[in-house]
Amino acid sequence: MSSLPVPNLRVGRLADRAHYDRDTVDAILDAAYVVHVGVVVDGAPVVIPFACARVGDELVIHGSTRAGMLSAAAAGAPICATVTLLDGLVLARSAFHSSMNYRSVVIHGVARAVDDPHEKVQLLDALFDHLLPGRREQLRAMSSGELSATAVIALALDRASAKVRTGGPNDPEPDKRHEVWGGVIPLTLTYGEPQPDGTTAIGVAPPEMRKF
Amino acid sequence: MSSLPVPNLRVGRLADRAHYDRDTVDAILDAAYVVHVGVVVDGAPVVIPFACARVGDELVIHGSTRAGMLSAAAAGAPICATVTLLDGLVLARSAFHSSMNYRSVVIHGVARAVDDPHEKVQLLDALFDHLLPGRREQLRAMSSGELSATAVIALALDRASAKVRTGGPNDPEPDKRHEVWGGVIPLTLTYGEPQPDGTTAIGVAPPEMRKF
Repeated sequence: MSSLPVPNLRVGRLADRAHYDRDTVDAILDAAYVVHVGVVVDGAPVVIPFACARVGDELVIHGSTRAGMLSAAAAGAPICATVTLLDGLVLARSAFHSSMNYRSVVIHGVARAVDDPHEKVQLLDALFDHLLPGRREQLRAMSSGELSATAVIALALDRASAKVRTGGPNDPEPDKRHEVWGGVIPLTLTYGEPQPDGTTAIGVAPPEMRKF
Repeated sequence: MSSLPVPNLRVGRLADRAHYDRDTVDAILDAAYVVHVGVVVDGAPVVIPFACARVGDELVIHGSTRAGMLSAAAAGAPICATVTLLDGLVLARSAFHSSMNYRSVVIHGVARAVDDPHEKVQLLDALFDHLLPGRREQLRAMSSGELSATAVIALALDRASAKVRTGGPNDPEPDKRHEVWGGVIPLTLTYGEPQPDGTTAIGVAPPEMRKF
């Protein structure tokens, strides 16, 4: 299942870090909670973070129907959806060769507005299952009022590309003689201790969290 | 030091989460490694992650001079720079009232191209100091070749707004009777064990990391 983007969407800079295969794209999207969505409003860009989940061949994004950006996207404005996972600081012996390890996906396209209530529920359930598997089935069903207050769009992954940097610094030979620590400081998004609210009865166990 | 954005830039949705004071904006930017920058290319949005640092009243962004987006921004294209820090999953008793805790800043504007070599070095040093305080002074100076291969832009913060969600779920009364765990699962970006590369001499200590 491959999806070469059209030529002008190919990664230009550091093309050796670019990946266009769906497995790489999917793995990155499946590890992300948040996507940054860009849309053009009155000729200028607007970039806003949203919760997201990959469902099959699409990235599903939801928000309030009052979120202007989602309305614009649902009405057919081209969007760019970018997911970035920061994996570490790469400390070389020079500022220039220092870098970051990361995995990112950029998706260009026109999103599909999801209006059918049945499909909307299905995709919202999938989105919730992505955020915290198993949680959704513990909760009550959405009311029709809640459903109509929620906007859902889906963006096809056929114009997605990934960019990944891994490994240590690439110092040129002369720099390696500098007696300074070089390597990687890993960075990971980590769960803290669950904090129950005042309404949670004693003895009710917190949910099992997703493993990254 | 306040900076009310022009009216059409005010946060529309959930305006009670909006902040326009510079202290809030600065604290969020100062805790971030990465910014998502949006620019309009041929009428469509492009959103790309960059390393960033606040320096005084500007957000400084750098990259290769071959990065098309930075060239466009340096040439005066309007940009939108968005920083998002994810702080937790907010688990309500319904999918609808579940949420995320986050701190985000959105900055609109036209960036300033930093071309003067002296100022460029100064801002790149500040950027590096933000990523890892104290590290820069251990490294050799940038060569003029490296400097001219690096593009630096600076975006004024006078059109920045912040949006912050904190605290537990806001379940409506009837939902509180559901016997399901509710509360917050904190999320934090955490440093792992430093991984020295093969060139690092034994006994050379890893750098002290920044505290968030």
